[in-house]
Amino acid sequence: MTDVAQAFVPGHVTGFFTSDPDPDPTKAGSRGCGIALSDGVVVTVRPADAVSIELNGEPIAMGAVERVLDTLEAPAAVSATTDLPLGSGFGVSGAMAFGTALATNAAFDRRLSRNELVTIAHGAEVQAGTGLGDVVAQAHGGVTIRLEPGGPQDNVLDRIPARRRIEYHVIDELATDDVLDGETTALTMAGKKALSEVVQEPTLDRFMRASRTFARESDLLTARVRDVVLDVSEAGGSATMAMLGETVVALGTGLTDAGYDPGVCQIHPAGATLEPDPSM
Amino acid sequence: MTDVAQAFVPGHVTGFFTSDPDPDPTKAGSRGCGIALSDGVVVTVRPADAVSIELNGEPIAMGAVERVLDTLEAPAAVSATTDLPLGSGFGVSGAMAFGTALATNAAFDRRLSRNELVTIAHGAEVQAGTGLGDVVAQAHGGVTIRLEPGGPQDNVLDRIPARRRIEYHVIDELATDDVLDGETTALTMAGKKALSEVVQEPTLDRFMRASRTFARESDLLTARVRDVVLDVSEAGGSATMAMLGETVVALGTGLTDAGYDPGVCQIHPAGATLEPDPSM
Repeated sequence: MTDVAQAFVPGHVTGFFTSDPDPDPTKAGSRGCGIALSDGVVVTVRPADAVSIELNGEPIAMGAVERVLDTLEAPAAVSATTDLPLGSGFGVSGAMAFGTALATNAAFDRRLSRNELVTIAHGAEVQAGTGLGDVVAQAHGGVTIRLEPGGPQDNVLDRIPARRRIEYHVIDELATDDVLDGETTALTMAGKKALSEVVQEPTLDRFMRASRTFARESDLLTARVRDVVLDVSEAGGSATMAMLGETVVALGTGLTDAGYDPGVCQIHPAGATLEPDPSM
Repeated sequence: MTDVAQAFVPGHVTGFFTSDPDPDPTKAGSRGCGIALSDGVVVTVRPADAVSIELNGEPIAMGAVERVLDTLEAPAAVSATTDLPLGSGFGVSGAMAFGTALATNAAFDRRLSRNELVTIAHGAEVQAGTGLGDVVAQAHGGVTIRLEPGGPQDNVLDRIPARRRIEYHVIDELATDDVLDGETTALTMAGKKALSEVVQEPTLDRFMRASRTFARESDLLTARVRDVVLDVSEAGGSATMAMLGETVVALGTGLTDAGYDPGVCQIHPAGATLEPDPSM
């Protein structure tokens, strides 16, 4: 067992998705497409007498993180910091789950492979009901196309090869579990259609267009998000809704050009990374 | 068609590998394990009247790059820069092939997915006889375990989750095609054994040990490499041979501690990346 270990996990905004349930949480998940962000979550894991979890200095209950620690049989103090808001479609819970898995593996010398750690964190998120595809995409990085659902043993991934400035504007929270627990047939049909659009032409512009159509057809688009997306469009830009938050994401300077004061970051080119151990 | 585009591709040192031929070059390749390096190759692609390829300012013939441009129907001037030596086991030809694919896709607006670009560059490398697994690992990043051979449609990849300082010491070149064209049964048997060692315990230490055994059993270990590896071992470190070069790679400060003046870099956590377009 070494001492403390730290991981960085990119935020992730989903443009569209399907819901693909399965009795096995490592096979369940979603297809879809989303963007890993250079704004993310830093997760620090320290061996401790009892499990504790905090986010930006405040204690927080997070089912997915607890399950990861339980699976790895690791009593640890997990402390995470991020500038991204919770519950707004940035995949903060997925980031905490996978960051905890990566850093715990190092701090407790658990000798698992990266795919095994993704499987553990993905299954924990699915069981906790807080996400279906964030962990997989946050481990993969870039603009991930999830062609088949589930953890690394089952999924099929590709990427839109792109680098770009990304802006975001948060209006309010949305509860992920309310949507995922509800009727998802129409949502999944809209998600499949969007996926086939992006597979035909894997570009950012096509992704944004397919995501806007999905937001309407899935009935997830809120009036306030729609108004901001239209503002960006009228200013000549391209924006869509981050699933699942009342959050607008735009390419380039789309939100700035429309008069908003957005968060600004980049497409993060890599998946989550363990921070180098300065002693090695 | 935009203007110029640029990609960074990490260098890649292979510790052990198998040779898995197939009539289809996108299915052929190798299993094995290697380390992506923060020292890599920057590839710039500009639309041009005729194809030209240069490395560090000098014209160079590179079959894999020519095939990539041919497949993408892209007459381009490709110029690459790197501090890594050619023919010494750093995957420079694979880096140039995949960097050309990534940057050409952007510069010529070819709208292909990342997996499609990996497939094209991997197939080109196999057909040119300059590599079997570098492109796939350079696209994936980190310490890639190649569990099944071939391009993204066929292969299965995992990673050893690790960050570490890496040192390297180049003695001389080795010709990759001489080895790959020869009898590879014993090599592949040794590669499979090493792979199963690393799958049992995916750690850097186990990887280095399995790689040293592979170098001996495959008969690829040269006397000069063996002497340097022993020097590092006697100084308390861990080193192995980079396949295929007369090059020694060590973890941490292994070569420095043994009195050498090595190249120094880090495990590169990400696969190859397109550089951001500053105009966007």
